[in-house]
Amino acid sequence: MMMDDMFQNISSTVRGQIIQRPAESCEIDKPGPFCLVIFGASGDLTKRKLIPSIYRLYSLKLIEGEFIVLGVARSDMNDETFRESMLETVKKANPDDFSDSSWREFAKRLFYSKVEYSELNSYNSLKENIFALENEHQLTNRVFYIATPPTVYETIIENLGDAGLSQKCNGSTHIVIEKPFGRDPESAKGLNHILRKSFAEKQIYRMDHYLAKENVQNILMFRFANSIFEPLWNRNFIDYVQISVSETLGVEHRAGYYEKSGVLRDMFQNHLLQLVALTAMEPPSVFEADRVRDEKVKVFRSIKPFPLDRLDDYAVLGQYGDGEINGVKVTGYRNEPGVAPDSVTPTFAALKVFIDNWRWSGVPFYLRSGKRLSTQKAEISIHFKHAPHMMFDKTMKAGIEPNVLVLRVQPDEGIGLVIQTKNPGSRIYLNSVLMDFSYEKALMLGPYERALLDCMQSDQMLFVRADGVELTWELLMPVIERLESETRPDKFPNYAAGSTGPAESAALLEREDHSWKTL
Amino acid sequence: MMMDDMFQNISSTVRGQIIQRPAESCEIDKPGPFCLVIFGASGDLTKRKLIPSIYRLYSLKLIEGEFIVLGVARSDMNDETFRESMLETVKKANPDDFSDSSWREFAKRLFYSKVEYSELNSYNSLKENIFALENEHQLTNRVFYIATPPTVYETIIENLGDAGLSQKCNGSTHIVIEKPFGRDPESAKGLNHILRKSFAEKQIYRMDHYLAKENVQNILMFRFANSIFEPLWNRNFIDYVQISVSETLGVEHRAGYYEKSGVLRDMFQNHLLQLVALTAMEPPSVFEADRVRDEKVKVFRSIKPFPLDRLDDYAVLGQYGDGEINGVKVTGYRNEPGVAPDSVTPTFAALKVFIDNWRWSGVPFYLRSGKRLSTQKAEISIHFKHAPHMMFDKTMKAGIEPNVLVLRVQPDEGIGLVIQTKNPGSRIYLNSVLMDFSYEKALMLGPYERALLDCMQSDQMLFVRADGVELTWELLMPVIERLESETRPDKFPNYAAGSTGPAESAALLEREDHSWKTL
Repeated sequence: MMMDDMFQNISSTVRGQIIQRPAESCEIDKPGPFCLVIFGASGDLTKRKLIPSIYRLYSLKLIEGEFIVLGVARSDMNDETFRESMLETVKKANPDDFSDSSWREFAKRLFYSKVEYSELNSYNSLKENIFALENEHQLTNRVFYIATPPTVYETIIENLGDAGLSQKCNGSTHIVIEKPFGRDPESAKGLNHILRKSFAEKQIYRMDHYLAKENVQNILMFRFANSIFEPLWNRNFIDYVQISVSETLGVEHRAGYYEKSGVLRDMFQNHLLQLVALTAMEPPSVFEADRVRDEKVKVFRSIKPFPLDRLDDYAVLGQYGDGEINGVKVTGYRNEPGVAPDSVTPTFAALKVFIDNWRWSGVPFYLRSGKRLSTQKAEISIHFKHAPHMMFDKTMKAGIEPNVLVLRVQPDEGIGLVIQTKNPGSRIYLNSVLMDFSYEKALMLGPYERALLDCMQSDQMLFVRADGVELTWELLMPVIERLESETRPDKFPNYAAGSTGPAESAALLEREDHSWKTL
Repeated sequence: MMMDDMFQNISSTVRGQIIQRPAESCEIDKPGPFCLVIFGASGDLTKRKLIPSIYRLYSLKLIEGEFIVLGVARSDMNDETFRESMLETVKKANPDDFSDSSWREFAKRLFYSKVEYSELNSYNSLKENIFALENEHQLTNRVFYIATPPTVYETIIENLGDAGLSQKCNGSTHIVIEKPFGRDPESAKGLNHILRKSFAEKQIYRMDHYLAKENVQNILMFRFANSIFEPLWNRNFIDYVQISVSETLGVEHRAGYYEKSGVLRDMFQNHLLQLVALTAMEPPSVFEADRVRDEKVKVFRSIKPFPLDRLDDYAVLGQYGDGEINGVKVTGYRNEPGVAPDSVTPTFAALKVFIDNWRWSGVPFYLRSGKRLSTQKAEISIHFKHAPHMMFDKTMKAGIEPNVLVLRVQPDEGIGLVIQTKNPGSRIYLNSVLMDFSYEKALMLGPYERALLDCMQSDQMLFVRADGVELTWELLMPVIERLESETRPDKFPNYAAGSTGPAESAALLEREDHSWKTL
């Protein structure tokens, strides 16, 4: 491409004809004919995410060939009632793409089978159903999506294997496992062990919906397709890194799960450590799932173990009390339905992480995540060092702020670079200004859409490998155990709903002369 | 400043309260009481630029203390007619800041003296005038602004010295020399010699109005106040640099001057080489006029002499023929009033320049400037090298475009960075997108406002030093002489008005696999 052409093509947002005119585009490969079997079909995830995502892919014509979706659960439903139960959420989730005629066509592809998860017999009749549908529609690929509560993961996986459903002589069979993948190293290893009895690693798709977000995927592209950032991406130029994933929502209806989990299991073991890996990893030689995952695992292996004897310098926990978000009063965690009145479950954590390798030695990665914070936001910020010499000293009053690169994962997905420029008019006076680029949202695939499409196309890039999930559990478990055993009820609540977390979180960074980026 | 504060202050444009609320601001130092004596007061520059600029500074309250402007020329005028002759252009140039009451106050400070430039006696009566005004208004600082045709520069300077006007026992005396400063090394040296007989170098302000443009000044701030660019600012990461200054205007009423000058003298010796110096210079240890000018001179000394035996590989000249700009037919250079019908004066040039030092060895700087081109634009673009390894090879169709940093001098002053990001929706497909920042124009000082203010405050940073002007003439003169002697009338015209210049200009870069950025 000539430079001339290139500049004519630049816009302040990404051009996005691709989804709007799929017929002309070859950038999104479309999957072959598939049969998607969803376990937990009467559950929340199926209704809110999975079926609406499949519908959007269908209405965008990103899945055009033959496919069927077979919902599986313990509830009494038939094809017709299953279809009806999905209509409202599909409509709600796709206000722009929904049409009655398209829904009628789509709904014909939805089927339902009742299954008793623990009874092998039940899987034999499921098998007959699947075979019949696959034959009738000539479907070569099969995907099991396990969207049930984690307590039945192992039962389902074993029975799928025992029923001979995990392999297919023609075409592929994949299995998608929702989070949480274990609750400690042993349970994660146990789950992997059971999976491997019937499935090969290349069939296994461990879902981390954060990894499928548009700007998370972009991190690697951004780092390795631009020659100017990689030379700066190390301890010589970077002062520290921050990763924040904040929610304004509370525990909602998930107290049963959350009370046993807490924020470290729920957010750090998976999402935040995955973001660390993408930010910190060495460039792989090729952009392939296993080469990328090799590099991510190398990062996990390089993370310095937390010093348990002075954990206060590395970790801060919090739990929200009563407060106010956007003018609305909200109740504290301990008053939420299903939460113990003296619960010590943390709903907020901040961690300081070091990566012991040549690139990152001495550069702190500050991670923070919590519920009921002031803002809904996920972003990575790279805080560069100060300029080494300030030639403007004599003429300037204030010091010069360092550069910050912000990778916004949500909302307003994009990239920002804080730079210093001269204040117009003045002789010498600098201002922090933001060079900015935002994605056009309308053109993005949602994380479930992206992940489903990739799974159907056998691309494991956005999914977690067995060694990755085990290493992250091993890394965090000593911290979780120590903190769980030490936290006393009178420590919590220690931050008000709608705040930016407990005071200790700010103190964690101030010790190093750093500070959190505004939430 | 805490990070929190910093981020709250970020806007996508520079905050600009400084000019809007000058009373609260201390960033712009205001000059002490001054007497500005303008030679060439009946001329175009005085009318279009100097008086309107002084008026704007006055109405923005950037000069609040006592001052007077004494116009000097050969025309018969008095204070009253001089004031009247300025009203219309001041009004036109300051549509937002003009008010009748403010004009009446301002006009009281305008005076006029008729002077015969070549008669010393005339300067003696001028002297009496100046002394009287300085006494009456208690003005401690004196500025001579030489805005006459260059033919009388030397006469005026000598007579000012002989009349004892170049020194002042209390306060300062500065002299501003408009461009062109010489037309070859000898005339530049001669002019410097005459200046130095009566003025010290620290009194001499050689005007280059390009240097006073907001974003030109910002180049140094940008380079040295941001830690992330300087590590990339060298041959290891930069492929080539482009500097383009294009005009849509033709020669207009300036044929008399331009026919003897041409684009190399008119634009390259001063503006373009100054831009090269700012882009390429090493960081000075302090941000002071002489330390910055030391570094600029070092760049001029490092520029590799043009190989006269194969100049075609390094220089392309052009002259516009008939054409069309923005739908309006315009005539070729040779048909402009005052231009010879077989003129060989170049109105366009493109040069390839190398800087022989550790930082820049092997990196071409491509310079281009011309009249009657398709666009009015001045910008510097830094073209970074390709990423060293393309891990996306297998999965991508097209190659990956390199990063480009664009410093826009005019119009739409700002900074842009072309980066590669993932195309939303697609798995792997990159787009060039622009991260961007633009100045708020309303808040900027114009180059003459900036330069006048600096001169009154004894800041020579934006003015050219004697060694700088002599070196740039020495550098270009062999090229100018060779090209002037070799260019035959049948070579021109070789580009149509409204085009991007002659075809040879594109070819100059294509040889190196580079290409001009779209004008």
